[in-house]
Parts: sequence; C-alpha cells; structure tokens
Amino acid sequence: MECANFVSQIYVMPKISQKAVAMPPSPIRKLVPYSEAAKAAGKKVYHLNIGQPDIETPEVVRNEMKAIDVKVIEYSNSDGIASYKKGLAGYYQSKGIQIDSSNLMVTTGGSEALIFAFMTCLNPGDEVIIPEPFYANYNGFAVMAGVKVVPVQSFIESGFALPPISSFEEKITDKTKAILICNPGNPTGYLYSKEELEQLRDLVLKHDLFLFADEVYREFMYDGAIPHSVLNLAGLENHAVMIDSVSKRYSMCGARIGALVTRNSEVMGMAMKFAQARLSPPTFGQIASEAALETPQSYFEGVVAEYVKRRDILVNGLNAIEGVICPKPKGAFYCIAKLPIDNSDKFCQWMLEEFSFENQTVMMAPATGFYATPGAGVNEVRLAYVLNEESLRNAVRCLEVALQEYPGKLV
Amino acid sequence: MECANFVSQIYVMPKISQKAVAMPPSPIRKLVPYSEAAKAAGKKVYHLNIGQPDIETPEVVRNEMKAIDVKVIEYSNSDGIASYKKGLAGYYQSKGIQIDSSNLMVTTGGSEALIFAFMTCLNPGDEVIIPEPFYANYNGFAVMAGVKVVPVQSFIESGFALPPISSFEEKITDKTKAILICNPGNPTGYLYSKEELEQLRDLVLKHDLFLFADEVYREFMYDGAIPHSVLNLAGLENHAVMIDSVSKRYSMCGARIGALVTRNSEVMGMAMKFAQARLSPPTFGQIASEAALETPQSYFEGVVAEYVKRRDILVNGLNAIEGVICPKPKGAFYCIAKLPIDNSDKFCQWMLEEFSFENQTVMMAPATGFYATPGAGVNEVRLAYVLNEESLRNAVRCLEVALQEYPGKLV
Repeated sequence: MECANFVSQIYVMPKISQKAVAMPPSPIRKLVPYSEAAKAAGKKVYHLNIGQPDIETPEVVRNEMKAIDVKVIEYSNSDGIASYKKGLAGYYQSKGIQIDSSNLMVTTGGSEALIFAFMTCLNPGDEVIIPEPFYANYNGFAVMAGVKVVPVQSFIESGFALPPISSFEEKITDKTKAILICNPGNPTGYLYSKEELEQLRDLVLKHDLFLFADEVYREFMYDGAIPHSVLNLAGLENHAVMIDSVSKRYSMCGARIGALVTRNSEVMGMAMKFAQARLSPPTFGQIASEAALETPQSYFEGVVAEYVKRRDILVNGLNAIEGVICPKPKGAFYCIAKLPIDNSDKFCQWMLEEFSFENQTVMMAPATGFYATPGAGVNEVRLAYVLNEESLRNAVRCLEVALQEYPGKLV
Repeated sequence: MECANFVSQIYVMPKISQKAVAMPPSPIRKLVPYSEAAKAAGKKVYHLNIGQPDIETPEVVRNEMKAIDVKVIEYSNSDGIASYKKGLAGYYQSKGIQIDSSNLMVTTGGSEALIFAFMTCLNPGDEVIIPEPFYANYNGFAVMAGVKVVPVQSFIESGFALPPISSFEEKITDKTKAILICNPGNPTGYLYSKEELEQLRDLVLKHDLFLFADEVYREFMYDGAIPHSVLNLAGLENHAVMIDSVSKRYSMCGARIGALVTRNSEVMGMAMKFAQARLSPPTFGQIASEAALETPQSYFEGVVAEYVKRRDILVNGLNAIEGVICPKPKGAFYCIAKLPIDNSDKFCQWMLEEFSFENQTVMMAPATGFYATPGAGVNEVRLAYVLNEESLRNAVRCLEVALQEYPGKLV
C-alpha cells in the first residue's frame, strides 16, 4: 500500500487514451505555428491551406443577425429549429432532391453530421472505404468512432476519377460497412458523373453497405457541370446518407451549421439520440442559416464566376511551372498539385520557415494528410483557391520561385 | 452471385451500430411527443423537465449581437477566438481560479468539452465512476466514447451528499481511469464541501485517476454557499479537468459555447486534435460569450435572488405534499423529489397523456434516466425550477392533485 502510494506520487499523471495518440493532427492547421511565426516576422502569408473563403456572407444573413430580437437565447430542438428544417427541405427540393423535413436533422457543421453517421452506422472495428485523397478530417472522425478507414487510391494522372469498382471490391471484407465519398471532391475538385455514382450504387446494394456522401460543395460547380446527389440514386433509400453544411455555400463557416440527410428512418431515429445527448445545434447559426435560404440566385452566380476566375489563375499558373501537374477541378475550390519536390511536409514547412519572395510566402496543406496509404501524396500539396485574383497571382509567383530555391527540389 | 444479389435485395437495409442501439434516449426530452400532443389538445404544460431558464440573456450580449459588423462569418481558431480565451481566463481568475488562456479550450457547449475529455483520457472499455443520480447525458457521452459508467449511489435521505470514499474504492478496478462529478450538482442541487473534494483529491491521487468536474452551475449558489473548483485542489494539476459552459451562466443555452479547462498540457494538446477535426466552435456564440464577460454583478445577484425564491416555492411546496421528499438544493436549479408513486416513467407520461387540472399539467423528467443502477430512481423525478413564481405555484398545485388521482399512487 505504501509502495503503491509512492509509485502514484512519482507518476502523478494519468495516461491519455490510445485514441488521443492515434488522432492525426490536421494537415490543414498543423503548420499554424510556423505561419504565425512568419507573420510575426513581418512576412505576408497567402493562406491557400484552408477552405476559408474571403467571399462575403450574403447580405440577407447579416441583416437578419442585426434584427434578432429575442430576450432569451434558447436551445432549439435537438434536430433543429422546425421552421429552418422545413426551409432546408425546400432548398433540397429546389435542387431536385425530393425529401421532406423528417428526412433531415440540423447538425453542428458537416463535421458533426459525419460523426453522427459513423457512430450510428458503424461499430468500432468496422471498415469504411474511401477513395483517396480525401478530406483529411475523415481520419479524425474515424478515430473518434473507432472505425478503420480503408483507402482506394485515385490518381492525379486521371484527374482523380472514381477508381475502378474492382479496386473497391478487392477491399471489401466482412468488416466493411460503408463507402464514403465527397462530391464535388475536397481536396481533388473532382465531380463524379452519374455513371460513376450508379456504379457505386450497384456496389453498395450488392454488399448491403451504407453510402455516405459529403455534398457540401454542391453550389460550386464549373463549366456547366451538374451535381448528382446520392439521394437521387434509385434503390438507395435505406443506404444513402448525405452530409451537408452551410459553411461554404453561404461563406459562413463560423455558423457551424450542417445537416444529416437520409430517407432511412431507423438511422434518423438513432442519430436523434446522439443529437439529444448534445442538446441542440447553435441557435444563432440556425437563424443565420434560415435567413440564408433567401439568398438570391445572383449571389451564387457571382460566386461561381469568381471561383472560375480564381481556379483558372491558380491551376493554369501552376501547370505553367516546370514539373508541376495540377488537374483542373470541376467543382469545389481546391486542387491537388504534384510538385517536383522530395517531401511536401518538409516543403510546406520550409516555405513558412525559410523562404520568402518579396517578403511574401504561401501556406499550403501537405497532401500526405489527405491519403491513408503510407507514402502516398508525398510530393503533392492541396491548395484552396479562396483568395482574390491578385493574391493568387502573387502566390503562384512565390511558388515558382520557391520551387527553384527549395533544397529538396527534384531536378 | 445471383443468390447474393437476391439476398441483398430483400434485406435492402444495412444494420445500424451497437452504439446507436445502446444510446439512451434523453429522459429530459424523450416525453416531448406527449407534451406536444398535450399542447395540441389545448393543455397548458409547465416545463419543469428541462433546464431551459426563462431568465433574460444579459443586455450586453443582445446589444453586441445587433452590432456585429463582419462581412464574412469565418471559422475561429479550433480552440476558440484568442480574445475570448483571454477574457475567459480573466473570468476564472476573478473567481479565484488561477489559470491562463493556454489552460483552456473553447468548445461547442459543455457537451463537447466532456466528449473531448472522455475521448482524450479514456480508452474504450475503461471505466468512469460517477456518483448517481447524475446528469443523464453523461450516459450518452460514455456510449459515444465506448466508456463504461460505474455508478456510486448517493441517497435522497442524506440530501445526495458525497457517498463515503469507501464506496468509491470498492468500485475501482484496473479499468478505472476517472471519476466524474457535477458541482453544484445537476440533478441534485447538492454542493460538495471543500472536505468532500479533498477526499476525492486524495482518492484520485492514490489511484492516479483523472477527476472530471462539470462546474457549469458555478454562479447558481444559494444561502451564502461558496463553490470550490477542482482546479483549486493542490496536487491535482495533471489530474483535474474542468468542464464549463456559458449556457446557464448567462441564460444563453442556444449559444452552444463551453470550455475544457485543465493544467495538464498533454491533455490539452491531445484534445486540440479532436478540436481541429471539427474545425471550430460557433463564431456567433463566441462573440456573444465574449460580450457576456461584461455582464454586471448585479445581473447575477438578481438571478440568484430569483432562483432562491423559485427554489423555495417549489421545494417547500413539494415537501408540503403528503409522501413527497425533496432535499433543498444549495446550488444549480434542479431538485430531485421522491414521490409516492409506483413508477416515475409511467407517472410522467400519465401527467401529459391522461391528467389535467384546470386544463394544466406538468412535464417532469423521470429520475430513472439519471441513475445507472437498474431500478434506482423509480419513484423519483427531476424538476428544474426555471419558470416564474406563478407558474411554479400552479405546477405544484397540479402535482398535488395529480398525486391524488394517479392510479399508480402508493397509499
């Protein structure tokens, strides 16, 4: 007893969990200390690392927030404010997705919607197949739910098209419970065709899997491309779970409002228990999101035109640099670029710590964090074209110079 | 192959997870369909089931929200807006808790803070000891983290005082990783003395456990009582993790802003990875919370005086009913009452479905959901005294009549 006491007194620190250790740091945010230091040293840093657009939140939202006149800022229902749920169902209907408000739940961002989907549908140890590269935070949500991510690699050479269905089939085990896609894709900007989605539909029906689809970039489609929702795939009523968010749609990432949408009423009913445990999604954000439903179509047209311009500056600029390959995105506002470098983690850190060109530098996300296959993406970076034209031109110029100066460049 | 296809086509529904099945429904919200039906039938329902106060949010908050003048509603840092973190550290210092902003992280409500604490500190299968009755949603967070709740029963006869330390020691196994308390207590209103907290301190040091303390009701202390934070227990620097929230403090539950506070920098660093995965806490709520730091002391004095009045009306009223026992709470705004009934789940449902007195009824939370021991709390209910005096008097009168009419009353 004496001895046990003694031991605990020198240890004086209980162990943290395996999940905490296993949680990956965000490849999008992990270099923040270096960018802070660069800024403190007076460097201008172009933030292409994070999908925080500079696009203004619609005026209808900002006006509504000023007009809030409640005496008590109350909890909402756990599945969201009823009038917002109804309005949101109307938004989906306007996009050709025929669901009603009983098929959706308001969540705290798309992040929470995916955590609820994982927790509701998958047991610890179950496997979810995800075409890689994929949104890095899927790894974190998988760790939280104790779920294993099984990647199926897509390739920059084919513009990150859906890998052949046979490569999914190879990965299916008796632990496989779901496939997760992001469409249009973060980080690739790839947009799945109807035919690709139908191939996935047949596959999940054959193996009785859930098909989770992160469709938060629905409004960001270029060159006349048309988005297809998994909710419109016939026969998937009980298999399709759609993840949505207002963050990018209305440039209000800070509202933290998303949605879990499915016609599977068992999933919805069970997810409701997770929703009740955390009480409610943010009330202010819901008020903002309900106001945002009145955003005029002209807003989106303006935003899309702006992103097309930005994409073209960034992607054309990148492809003009020797040794750089960057497929042209059809949607969202990211791209993956393959660079003539040894290691993207080192390169991105070097850009912040060591490099400057006319006292400027660029912050990017190393693509390694967007792959689950070890070593994949080691010479790729993810860039978000969320800054204005001039900033993007400067960023491309910086990158061009940096690729000449970087000690780990591949010649 | 034909056969496999055929099977999947009749099954057409993948199985949900064991966690989803295991998640308990909220005892606070599970009777909502019955209350909705009662209201639809024209009955006045007094909501004593949920801690949604009618107290006004401070005017400084409401004014600040109208004055928000940003063009883009951006993500904040994952651990919160730096100026709010600094201000919040100042609030704790003013309460005698000497921490700085590096010891705290802003979360999406107290709920998320506790989920992060569980996920960071406990492995699936690990055990957390909680004196019961306890806030029902702890069960849900435990299911999410795969953690086992081990209850130590406290008793209404002793006003829900801390059970003897020996009853904790009996429950400690090699899976025990933490003790969780709520102080002042929801649902009991009990306030742990300095001596009780020191007993817990010695226990967690002896066994090298984490001590999680939910201190969200800090401002709601009556009759001159003084709150003691686990952060002020000497020697617990690496063991104490405090959960906080602005929801009740400023009557702004809908803001969804909480905090995880600890001097254990490893826990804070690891929790940061969970925080990064979900990007950021709500921006609007943080702006409101930062404004709330300017709430004048007179606001809290007014609120406390109001709750003392309400508590006295409810608790004295309850104790005046034959066969009812209700210890007087020293803090928070809940009480547990033991009623002369067969079953509190049945009784609470009956109150909504079958009963009315002068076209009014009362919604309460069956206490069974606040215990982990099967059968415990079967004749107890939790009541939140969050309504005005007149409503509380009417609610007590309703309850008195109901207890005479209820078919399952114990004579």
